[in-house]
Amino acid sequence: MKGIRQLAEHLDISIGTVSRALNGKPDVNEETRKRVLAAAEQLGYVANQSGRSLRQGTTNVIGLMIQSSRETVENSDNFFLTVTGGLQSVFSRHKLDLVMLPCPHDEDPYEYLKRMVARRIVDALIISETQRVDKRFDLLAKTKIPFVALGRSLSDGNASWIDLDFDGVVNSAVDRLVAHGHRRIAISAPSSDINLGFVFVEGYRRALERHGIIHDPALVIRAKSSEQGGYQVADELLRLEDRPTAVILIYELMAIGFYRRVMESGIIPGRDIAVVGFREAPRAKFLQPPLTCFRTSLHDLGVELAEILLSGMPAYSEEYPGKTRQTIWPLELMPGESDAFELGTKK
Amino acid sequence: MKGIRQLAEHLDISIGTVSRALNGKPDVNEETRKRVLAAAEQLGYVANQSGRSLRQGTTNVIGLMIQSSRETVENSDNFFLTVTGGLQSVFSRHKLDLVMLPCPHDEDPYEYLKRMVARRIVDALIISETQRVDKRFDLLAKTKIPFVALGRSLSDGNASWIDLDFDGVVNSAVDRLVAHGHRRIAISAPSSDINLGFVFVEGYRRALERHGIIHDPALVIRAKSSEQGGYQVADELLRLEDRPTAVILIYELMAIGFYRRVMESGIIPGRDIAVVGFREAPRAKFLQPPLTCFRTSLHDLGVELAEILLSGMPAYSEEYPGKTRQTIWPLELMPGESDAFELGTKK
Repeated sequence: MKGIRQLAEHLDISIGTVSRALNGKPDVNEETRKRVLAAAEQLGYVANQSGRSLRQGTTNVIGLMIQSSRETVENSDNFFLTVTGGLQSVFSRHKLDLVMLPCPHDEDPYEYLKRMVARRIVDALIISETQRVDKRFDLLAKTKIPFVALGRSLSDGNASWIDLDFDGVVNSAVDRLVAHGHRRIAISAPSSDINLGFVFVEGYRRALERHGIIHDPALVIRAKSSEQGGYQVADELLRLEDRPTAVILIYELMAIGFYRRVMESGIIPGRDIAVVGFREAPRAKFLQPPLTCFRTSLHDLGVELAEILLSGMPAYSEEYPGKTRQTIWPLELMPGESDAFELGTKK
Repeated sequence: MKGIRQLAEHLDISIGTVSRALNGKPDVNEETRKRVLAAAEQLGYVANQSGRSLRQGTTNVIGLMIQSSRETVENSDNFFLTVTGGLQSVFSRHKLDLVMLPCPHDEDPYEYLKRMVARRIVDALIISETQRVDKRFDLLAKTKIPFVALGRSLSDGNASWIDLDFDGVVNSAVDRLVAHGHRRIAISAPSSDINLGFVFVEGYRRALERHGIIHDPALVIRAKSSEQGGYQVADELLRLEDRPTAVILIYELMAIGFYRRVMESGIIPGRDIAVVGFREAPRAKFLQPPLTCFRTSLHDLGVELAEILLSGMPAYSEEYPGKTRQTIWPLELMPGESDAFELGTKK
């Protein structure tokens, strides 16, 4: 790679003039400027922003840490790629770039984050898939790197976060099912320690309580958040002696596996069992009967996430005044046919 | 963030001793070492690898540039997340980290890459979705950054690349269909300038020629590489006066949209029309009748991609001797039922 010195030598012009030409300073005549830019292009000159950044202490790069497991790779619905579009639409206004930091599935997310912090390639961080107890909050607070979390945690302290409204989703799902006569309502919950699972199950318990329904632990079915997990949930549910009449699934793609398993047993969602899914998913949209689920704009979620982050960074905070730094992100019910029947005999 | 100076002051030990303790040098007594490490953890000390890197001229980070459009986000099959796992399994041996560089969909990939190069956050680059003519090859060759492309291009020169065997796929698809009596075989091709589309269509023409079949341009149907694109291909195909009896689809998810459209017209794949898909996809695996398609390990592809890249980097090349630096990656035919019928009347 050519540096500014090589460029100056090639053109036989002083480094100072080349620098002023490259930086668009007015005291360089037009012809010289054109010659410099043409030579820069031709020789592959690239400004060394790393040196520049070290002086400024910034890289102008924001990192989004994602965890990928073999499971999520197979099953993921490109949640992150969609959020990324929203993030970039905000960052680009400030000439900031977004990089994704994929934590390998065999590495501890805390150790990974520690190393990425040490690499100093980003000015600020977004973490995701927050665990019930998540040491990453503490690490980032100590290192004083600006950050925001996509997801709450018991460990979040005063940190900024945005989280989907798991509580709101499970509340409207329970209300809707109870209104249709259901009392035995099952729920799927993740088998991991991801915080959203706790929020979801807790919201479910409170919603049942509100309707005077006694919570039966057998109806909380733990499974992986995947198509296969949905298949397994249906399988467990079919083996229960006192079968539930309705089920709320936490992960969008679970519905695909769930449908498959119950249909294998001749049970039709929306006729024999009520099913409410979580987020509307392109992959699940061809399910028959159409799934009742919840809609949100992941792009807009990305925009909000970016703005919360920038509102906490001194260089940008003035442009994002009065930003609420801990936000619950709403989802809207999309009624389908998977729960569109009245239960004849209330249990 | 605490630096080594703050750490030394906090412990009331010299900076030299703290440094030797942190770096595991033997001339520090065990108790001091423990005290230093405990304080480092407690105070959130993080080694400044950016300063270290500047001296070494490296960041130990490899970038994978991906392009995302609204379309690919909705339709993508997490191709990249799977390849990423393979890449990381190799990079981790060398304590290298992978970051993903998502080019915003409204930005020119060349300009984006130029900026990311200037940011100097990566030691080497992997580019993907290579276009027929792709200026990025020239840019990277000039900047002398080690790189490898996932995909060929007319512009690739002597650059390293790995590419899926589009030619092999279309050859076996045509052979298989011709053996079942088909002569009017349609093909889907991307509506963009992505290089793989050219390779695919060219391979198709040569395969037909080999069988003495005259190529009919009406049978090359251009569409977006998405479910919706597949729907559109079927729609165009149904409107042809002299309908083809078979079709080869270039993108895995096209099959889903294609099935949907033909079935709306009462036409059943594997009975009324032969369909061969491209890569086996988790999302397409529930299609009925099962789709004839091609299988490959994207994880292994990632491993190979990483090894080709490292073989071209002076610091690692010795460990990867004799690596072929331009590689066609094979796919294996997975016979399904979507083309499992003999055509009665040969046209």
